[in-house]
Amino acid sequence: MTGQMDDTGGSTGESRAYRDTAQVDLRHGAASPPRQRDTQVVGPPPTGSAVADPVPSPRAIPGDSGPVAAQASEYDQMRAVERHLDEILAAVPEPDPIELAVLDAQGLLCAEEVISSRALPAFDQAALDGYAARAEDLLGATPIAPIELAVVGESVAGAGAPSSIGPGLALKVTAGAMLPAGADVVVPAVWTDQGAVRVGVHADPPAGSYVRRAGDDVAPGDPAVQVGTPIGPAQISLLAAVGRERVLVRPRPRIAVLCAGTELVDVGTAPAPGQIVDVNSYALAAAARDAGAQAYRSGILPSDRRRLTEVLESQLLRSDLVLIAGTFASGGFDMVQEALAELGEMRFGQVTMHPGPAQGFGRLGRDQVPVICVPGEPVAALVSFEVFVRPAIRLMLGKRQLFRRTVQAIAGQPLVSPLGYRQYLHGMVMRHPDGGYVVEPVGDGTEALLARMARANCLIVIDEDVTEVAAGGLVTVMPLLLGG
Amino acid sequence: MTGQMDDTGGSTGESRAYRDTAQVDLRHGAASPPRQRDTQVVGPPPTGSAVADPVPSPRAIPGDSGPVAAQASEYDQMRAVERHLDEILAAVPEPDPIELAVLDAQGLLCAEEVISSRALPAFDQAALDGYAARAEDLLGATPIAPIELAVVGESVAGAGAPSSIGPGLALKVTAGAMLPAGADVVVPAVWTDQGAVRVGVHADPPAGSYVRRAGDDVAPGDPAVQVGTPIGPAQISLLAAVGRERVLVRPRPRIAVLCAGTELVDVGTAPAPGQIVDVNSYALAAAARDAGAQAYRSGILPSDRRRLTEVLESQLLRSDLVLIAGTFASGGFDMVQEALAELGEMRFGQVTMHPGPAQGFGRLGRDQVPVICVPGEPVAALVSFEVFVRPAIRLMLGKRQLFRRTVQAIAGQPLVSPLGYRQYLHGMVMRHPDGGYVVEPVGDGTEALLARMARANCLIVIDEDVTEVAAGGLVTVMPLLLGG
Repeated sequence: MTGQMDDTGGSTGESRAYRDTAQVDLRHGAASPPRQRDTQVVGPPPTGSAVADPVPSPRAIPGDSGPVAAQASEYDQMRAVERHLDEILAAVPEPDPIELAVLDAQGLLCAEEVISSRALPAFDQAALDGYAARAEDLLGATPIAPIELAVVGESVAGAGAPSSIGPGLALKVTAGAMLPAGADVVVPAVWTDQGAVRVGVHADPPAGSYVRRAGDDVAPGDPAVQVGTPIGPAQISLLAAVGRERVLVRPRPRIAVLCAGTELVDVGTAPAPGQIVDVNSYALAAAARDAGAQAYRSGILPSDRRRLTEVLESQLLRSDLVLIAGTFASGGFDMVQEALAELGEMRFGQVTMHPGPAQGFGRLGRDQVPVICVPGEPVAALVSFEVFVRPAIRLMLGKRQLFRRTVQAIAGQPLVSPLGYRQYLHGMVMRHPDGGYVVEPVGDGTEALLARMARANCLIVIDEDVTEVAAGGLVTVMPLLLGG
Repeated sequence: MTGQMDDTGGSTGESRAYRDTAQVDLRHGAASPPRQRDTQVVGPPPTGSAVADPVPSPRAIPGDSGPVAAQASEYDQMRAVERHLDEILAAVPEPDPIELAVLDAQGLLCAEEVISSRALPAFDQAALDGYAARAEDLLGATPIAPIELAVVGESVAGAGAPSSIGPGLALKVTAGAMLPAGADVVVPAVWTDQGAVRVGVHADPPAGSYVRRAGDDVAPGDPAVQVGTPIGPAQISLLAAVGRERVLVRPRPRIAVLCAGTELVDVGTAPAPGQIVDVNSYALAAAARDAGAQAYRSGILPSDRRRLTEVLESQLLRSDLVLIAGTFASGGFDMVQEALAELGEMRFGQVTMHPGPAQGFGRLGRDQVPVICVPGEPVAALVSFEVFVRPAIRLMLGKRQLFRRTVQAIAGQPLVSPLGYRQYLHGMVMRHPDGGYVVEPVGDGTEALLARMARANCLIVIDEDVTEVAAGGLVTVMPLLLGG
């Protein structure tokens, strides 16, 4: 009933596409499910209600119109989402760790075991402002029967040579000040009369109280920051404290973002009839950055064949991953497919997802750089990014959690989905006053609606074997938190 | 029983600090609660169990040791967390919007109403691959009784001049191709026999099906991106589509991060006895970046008085906010306080929080730049950042949600907290297998434990009027997601 993005087991996808969905449909009170021939998943539509709707319904939409899907017996050649994702994840390289200044390492994963050569704290010190003293001198002190000590001086944090105290003496100290020799306790100032020459102490804290001992936090030889730890402000604090100015980290993968299509013009150009503005190199570069990559927007691929190959080759040399948006499977842009094929094994095919069945992947050039091709339609391009590219970037970053966390939400209205396709709908998910979540689609899932996509805060994921979700039914929702 | 960070109502904090806590203590099975004089909140400790613990207990720790807290009748001069926060939030400026290239605007809030001068799509086009035709020619077509049309040609996305079709004719089209004049429907390829010269159509979709009409997404004059919208990949996609290369946004506030203390040495220097490494300028710069600011780490303030003022003045000129970590309230570094006071009204005082009661705030220089001073102890510095600085940065960014979301979690072990102080403990929050969250503190809350702080993923917030939370009790937890 729900798509499970966290499930990377690729082998179940296709078999699940054949599962009988009558039970699911009936449970949600849908009309009798459309009868499908056993081997035909995307079949000719009945001339029933779905097609007669004045607004095209996602249910009536074939996820694909290419020759593969059209010949039902070749359905096996279509790939499940998980299978395509698995191939990509198995192929992306692990970039070599690099050493960066600690502040530049922010947000990255530590790639070394940082062993402290120092003790933290470096010396015994007062944990707070008060009086350093000897615990044995204070036994039995109370507010009613205070014990008086002679104050021999004052020590502040940062002062070098510590004094020492003997029996009956105290040293006024500030938090972080070195403990004088002979002292084994710091009496907090509020438990005293705060005298300057003599001090009346109202409590008898045991030896060791309010004293930070050298090495209490980190002893020399202790691991301070471990391999795989994400470096945030607290880790940067600790790295600085153990004296590290630089640290070895998993680098941000360098991703070249390109787009292909003779209909494309750059954003600064007014499009002629039939032309459209290149939005994908912007949107995908932004998405790649948000996922943690160092993204380079390389723009529209040239239409000159020789220049095209030159651009591709140079991007392969300088990138850990190349991302190309374009309408590859539709014919008409085979020049790009040809140019890619010359550089290595590249496979274009249909993945059972909507939007965006036309996907491509290969490893090209001398360094076998992974190249991911996504559809040129901008909504499909960003959905494909979420499904295939973001997990690949996170894998290259060394993150353990590759996929966005999903939640179950109540569908605020009926949802329909093509059988055999995993459907991703942009939606708006909200907390329900009674707990849990409610989700509403922001579009009808059929069109390149950028304005609606821009209002969405989640993707609704409807599994391959589900064709309808009734209002009130549960669906899987993937919140699209930026940077999350 | 729980601290409510989202509550910015400042007036209740102090009165709550006077509330009788005997009931709370008894409910949690503590020994007879310490008797407090009516006007004294931080009083001399009994020589009871808390003090006799071999490990110092947070309950026994006075949150403050300065003269203000010591004189119980002056407790009113201590400030509640909310009151200090309110003063800061009321004083931070709203930086003027700036125009940035759309990719540089990522993560910022749009500061203009972006009106589209274009229609999206710009022309009627095929929504998917198939055959453009006239709906009236297809009436009654089914797989059993297909209707044949003559294919007059093929049109791909990006092709300029559209053809036109008459009765009985079809044009093969790819998704995004201009619709030929005369056509009012696109028949998906899978609902045809995909003929090249003649095509057999198996369905009769109504007029308008699978056609994207010009302006369906955005009509000329429509608002594309509105004021206050966070700019992510989808908004960048939309901005590019309406032809915008640049956009007006709320800029990242420029924050200078400095630290004060004669005990400080730079991270590259081996500290002499009594000296400690400056970790705060690194950690706070990282935290400020994580919160969305453009942070400049300016390091340790000079000890030369003239140079000190020069550095402060130059930072005030180039910053939207100045953040200084140092142990101001403890005496010994009054030179910095003096230098700040020369530049405007600066107030140092005690805030009823632990760690980090010693806080300062003012607006200095010709431009009345806000200056926030936080304690020099690194754990207290980062806690103070969370409580006071991060909300201020988010306010300057124009974010509506200033505070981290909090959750209620079950305390995995008993927690103690000083009466009258809001206690922030670093903790590790985990999902409970049965639902909800469980939290464990990573330290005992009393010491500058950087290594433990680095393992934490949340702050546990214990309200001013709570001194003990039993294991199994609910506490407020603030997950510290990076960038979240």
